[in-house]
Amino acid sequence: MAEKSPTLNGFSCPLPLAAGERILLGHGSGGKLSADLLRELILPAFGNETLLRMDDQAVVRVNGSRLAFTTDSFVVKPLFFPGGDIGTLAVNGTVNDLAMGGAQPLCLSMAFILEEGLPLETLRRVVWSCREAARAAGVEIVTGDTKVVEKGSCDGMFVNSSGIGVVPEGVKLSADQARPGDRVILSGPIGDHGIAILAQREGIEFEGALESDSAPLHELVAAMLAYAPAIRCLRDPTRGGLSSTCNEIAGQSRAGMLLEERAIGVRDAVRGACEMLGLDPLYVANEGKLVAVVDAGAAENILKAMRGHALGHEAQIIGTVTDGPPGRVLLRSRLGTTRIVDMLAGDQLPRIC
Amino acid sequence: MAEKSPTLNGFSCPLPLAAGERILLGHGSGGKLSADLLRELILPAFGNETLLRMDDQAVVRVNGSRLAFTTDSFVVKPLFFPGGDIGTLAVNGTVNDLAMGGAQPLCLSMAFILEEGLPLETLRRVVWSCREAARAAGVEIVTGDTKVVEKGSCDGMFVNSSGIGVVPEGVKLSADQARPGDRVILSGPIGDHGIAILAQREGIEFEGALESDSAPLHELVAAMLAYAPAIRCLRDPTRGGLSSTCNEIAGQSRAGMLLEERAIGVRDAVRGACEMLGLDPLYVANEGKLVAVVDAGAAENILKAMRGHALGHEAQIIGTVTDGPPGRVLLRSRLGTTRIVDMLAGDQLPRIC
Repeated sequence: MAEKSPTLNGFSCPLPLAAGERILLGHGSGGKLSADLLRELILPAFGNETLLRMDDQAVVRVNGSRLAFTTDSFVVKPLFFPGGDIGTLAVNGTVNDLAMGGAQPLCLSMAFILEEGLPLETLRRVVWSCREAARAAGVEIVTGDTKVVEKGSCDGMFVNSSGIGVVPEGVKLSADQARPGDRVILSGPIGDHGIAILAQREGIEFEGALESDSAPLHELVAAMLAYAPAIRCLRDPTRGGLSSTCNEIAGQSRAGMLLEERAIGVRDAVRGACEMLGLDPLYVANEGKLVAVVDAGAAENILKAMRGHALGHEAQIIGTVTDGPPGRVLLRSRLGTTRIVDMLAGDQLPRIC
Repeated sequence: MAEKSPTLNGFSCPLPLAAGERILLGHGSGGKLSADLLRELILPAFGNETLLRMDDQAVVRVNGSRLAFTTDSFVVKPLFFPGGDIGTLAVNGTVNDLAMGGAQPLCLSMAFILEEGLPLETLRRVVWSCREAARAAGVEIVTGDTKVVEKGSCDGMFVNSSGIGVVPEGVKLSADQARPGDRVILSGPIGDHGIAILAQREGIEFEGALESDSAPLHELVAAMLAYAPAIRCLRDPTRGGLSSTCNEIAGQSRAGMLLEERAIGVRDAVRGACEMLGLDPLYVANEGKLVAVVDAGAAENILKAMRGHALGHEAQIIGTVTDGPPGRVLLRSRLGTTRIVDMLAGDQLPRIC
């Protein structure tokens, strides 16, 4: 194989170059195409033990401390929406990626790519949103960067936020640790963020108030970590929605998963919007929810701890890890029928975060 | 003043909103407009002790270790140029921002914003460049992110790289520590990166080979740190060039600076291109050079250590910190006349990194 592998920049590359293939919107969906891109193009180049765990954050050991390190770029459109803006999303998103590793968030970076001609007031509003979101989450923004590109070369403003946190001793969460019998807990109803963005973007009005659920989840996680040894993994079901997150966990743990539709909360406004638009709430992005896979014996206690927190008071046990086919997620409907829930294919709502 | 301060998102904002002001390309120049934007819009919101030091990296204490943390977005145009591409630039740039704090780089994040329709091969080439640059610099890429935006919403590809490093005990570098009498050392000739990009972008051919100087400087820095107590600060003169870097150091240290033009190396090809295009090499970006301000007594030893390293063998003492007006940088020409060297105003070469 080595003699046939193509070369890139003079280095041999383990994958055949697919001539003519191009980036699709779906490659940014958080679903199947994103996973393909990561597996086939990024991991072969960068692959190392830390990255290959494919968690929402890297955990690296530095002088005896376990540091969580994460990055996310935000390209949400529009920049401002009910319940937040690109700034709150960037701060909360990065805080949450750290929290999903069980880390206490410490500090963030904030890097802006700005389009020439952007009103300074727009930038100022976003910067102040970042400030208030960081204060609310108890983290400091300690470093940053600003670049400007010509009018037409980016869409208003893109934001990158990276973050560092400390993982307490005894906490070891990873998406490859789910075991048959474990319970799957969801912290609240799904789909609010995606539908709020879509409504704002398209100028659609739905019955009932629709707001992004963007929120920092690290305190909810801290409350759960009293049961740390029983927690296998935490994930926030953002791009790709609940279905993609469950598929990732099942896939990485090489286990099956059975979800109960009746236990998965969807607000009436979200359900109505999804029905009207032909969307499945299982695939719609969330920015203030988490999925926990936990030991069955501790599930009720963890659920109770979650319900004691404002961001987890609607938490539900939504399913079980099974010894079904590795990576297969099934959903039992309210009528008792069962269907396969696959990862998002393509992208139903681009630029959701 | 409080009663008159405007509000933003419901929070009071210390600066009057300048109605109608817009982002200019110069706000991304690394020069005066960038500094204004930072001082007037970003710092009032995010201001904290770490950020207000305004170094190229934040240094935060975690469980007794001093961690350096930095972020940079890259929007260079074109993506590929003689001597590198957006990937090598991102890795080396972030490694250098860590190194300028005296930190040993540990790990990087890499986040891509991709335009729909980008050839996968373009992404693959960049990803493999990142890989090889990271290997060469001895750092791991441990976490990342990929977003896709619609065709026309970004210019091919933007990259953000954040990084973490560890600052050894006894090393404390900051741009506010320059004192009158200190020597200013430059690690090599200036302007290569900016002119190489410009030539590639505009299809201009100059006499002599022109290549970006993009390189990881942490090993050069490690060689210098044998004299750590004598080193006040290190900076890499990227956007805004040598002049802006010297102005930043002089400004933050509230000292004057006198540079000797004859000691500042400029390759013939760069000088010729600058003369033809009406550019001043003092303002042209570099990606593999550093400026060190050091105690006069150790300057010769540090210079010797630098010259022993491949990336510092053309190092020169180029000037002295003075008790002149705080923040004023003077340049003595080859003819003996002296002129003020100000920060870059506007932007002579946008999207240089």
